[in-house]
Amino acid sequence: MVNIGIAGATGMVGRTFLKVMEERNFPVNELYLFASSKSKGTTIEFNNKKYVVEELNESSFDKPMDIVLFSAGGDLSKKYAPIAKEKGIVVVDNSSAWRMEDWVPLIVPEVNGDSISKNKGIIANPNCSTIQSVIPLKPLNDRYKLKRVVFSTYQAVSGSGVAGLEDLEKGLSSTYNNIYPHPIAYNVLPHIDSFLDNGYTKEEMKMIDETKKILNDQDIQITATTVRVPVKYGHAVSANIELEKEFELDDIFTLLKNTDGIEVLDDLDNNIYPMPILAEGKDKVYVGRIRRDFSIKNGLNIWIVADNSRKGAATNTVQIAELLLNK
Amino acid sequence: MVNIGIAGATGMVGRTFLKVMEERNFPVNELYLFASSKSKGTTIEFNNKKYVVEELNESSFDKPMDIVLFSAGGDLSKKYAPIAKEKGIVVVDNSSAWRMEDWVPLIVPEVNGDSISKNKGIIANPNCSTIQSVIPLKPLNDRYKLKRVVFSTYQAVSGSGVAGLEDLEKGLSSTYNNIYPHPIAYNVLPHIDSFLDNGYTKEEMKMIDETKKILNDQDIQITATTVRVPVKYGHAVSANIELEKEFELDDIFTLLKNTDGIEVLDDLDNNIYPMPILAEGKDKVYVGRIRRDFSIKNGLNIWIVADNSRKGAATNTVQIAELLLNK
Repeated sequence: MVNIGIAGATGMVGRTFLKVMEERNFPVNELYLFASSKSKGTTIEFNNKKYVVEELNESSFDKPMDIVLFSAGGDLSKKYAPIAKEKGIVVVDNSSAWRMEDWVPLIVPEVNGDSISKNKGIIANPNCSTIQSVIPLKPLNDRYKLKRVVFSTYQAVSGSGVAGLEDLEKGLSSTYNNIYPHPIAYNVLPHIDSFLDNGYTKEEMKMIDETKKILNDQDIQITATTVRVPVKYGHAVSANIELEKEFELDDIFTLLKNTDGIEVLDDLDNNIYPMPILAEGKDKVYVGRIRRDFSIKNGLNIWIVADNSRKGAATNTVQIAELLLNK
Repeated sequence: MVNIGIAGATGMVGRTFLKVMEERNFPVNELYLFASSKSKGTTIEFNNKKYVVEELNESSFDKPMDIVLFSAGGDLSKKYAPIAKEKGIVVVDNSSAWRMEDWVPLIVPEVNGDSISKNKGIIANPNCSTIQSVIPLKPLNDRYKLKRVVFSTYQAVSGSGVAGLEDLEKGLSSTYNNIYPHPIAYNVLPHIDSFLDNGYTKEEMKMIDETKKILNDQDIQITATTVRVPVKYGHAVSANIELEKEFELDDIFTLLKNTDGIEVLDDLDNNIYPMPILAEGKDKVYVGRIRRDFSIKNGLNIWIVADNSRKGAATNTVQIAELLLNK
């Protein structure tokens, strides 16, 4: 039994942390919930017991916690994670603040769970689209070596939290949006996170850089176009893959079917393939539309769907905390 | 002034034919409207005059028509286009029935309008996603030579006509859909048209095969993943492009800006990029997110949006008819 803190407890991912911990019987002893001053005093139930949310501040980490799960945005992670670490509390952070620091393990348990041994006090949970993509890419890289990957994504508004869901519900008529610069209802936005000088969004660079770090292979060539679509839960990724070695398509099916965390949905005669509405509320990564890309030697196209709020965020973070317990 | 027939006049594209002809002052003398028996007797206005829809049948083409525009589905095109042709009426067909026949020109006027000279009585209008994609690909192929293209599409429900719009409006709750095997509201379907034995959809193979035919270049290597998204009007295409020759990114911008039919929308500081809601009701192809793909030599990523019901269907078909008039 461990003492757990949650920073950002009232947000969409924060609440999902609690739901996932309940479902997985995470061995919580004491639970401390933190959020911004405006959410202070909110009551949240966990395992049939009520907890009052406290304001996140520098003294929050004086509480006797073993692990704190952060999903309070990058700025707050940057500020408070070092304070928690200093007090001997292990931080598992869902923001992008620490992911690319060399000394910070970036973990998808099914892929590189052994990186937990490099824990120095802060462990990062990867970007949502990256998590669901590296799970099928890992066995392909191990067996056939990835040469190049082209990602095009179809990302749900819940990736922007409650604000994204609200913008979708506003429809096309609203001129004021919470979070998106344009309406998202009946529209798609080729714009997730902010734009960088190289013409890519931060989201696109996360998919490129984090994939290489998690697979521990800087030689894989990757490009990405990340797009917001009017879907509530469940990101989809169209992945075009070039492998170094020759493959038989049947072997790819077998390999992916036998990979932990994946469910292959690929029965075209019966219109069975991964879709956001199938993935919602689930923790698996769904892979389908598996077919040879005839435009290049050793080419492969696959379609990957997972619930961004769960495997893409909360579930993966809780799984990282479980790795800490098992160690 | 010419005598025009429209087969499928009551459908979404059929009605858009009339709207586009009005807007472009297409020189119509007599107008004959045809549809299925269930739409017989429907009254449709064109240039402030009322026309009564007749049933499409074998004697339809006894009327003194010069050109007939077909958007009545592949089966009816297969059956009736040869009858019209036999009577000396030029068919411009929006279905996929005739597109890949060697003797049938497949035309996007801005790209290969000169193919009109090969007219043998049936001219095909390409697939919607293909039309908007070949318009930017053509100048890139001319100047830098296309080596390989990876398409991932984000296609609006109006590509399935009124039935698609109705399925979107039904939301998630409906178990019965008009046209899609699964709900499309708040969902994405990696499934457009039917599946083939090679694991691709017909829509994907149209993008691959038609692009090569229109650009008159069988050496370009192409793959595609086509996806339906909950958008009413406006298809988007994420195109990952490998060129043979080296390029400067500034030259790509200049080239695309100077291409007939394209409007470049690429001002990231002001969140300006192509989106379906911007393209709706317009005839331009909007191109943006133009950036180097660093994962491969001479790589380029672009994002292409156009109104599938207009430039992707009705407008392009009417433009082909205009080419016939000018000849």
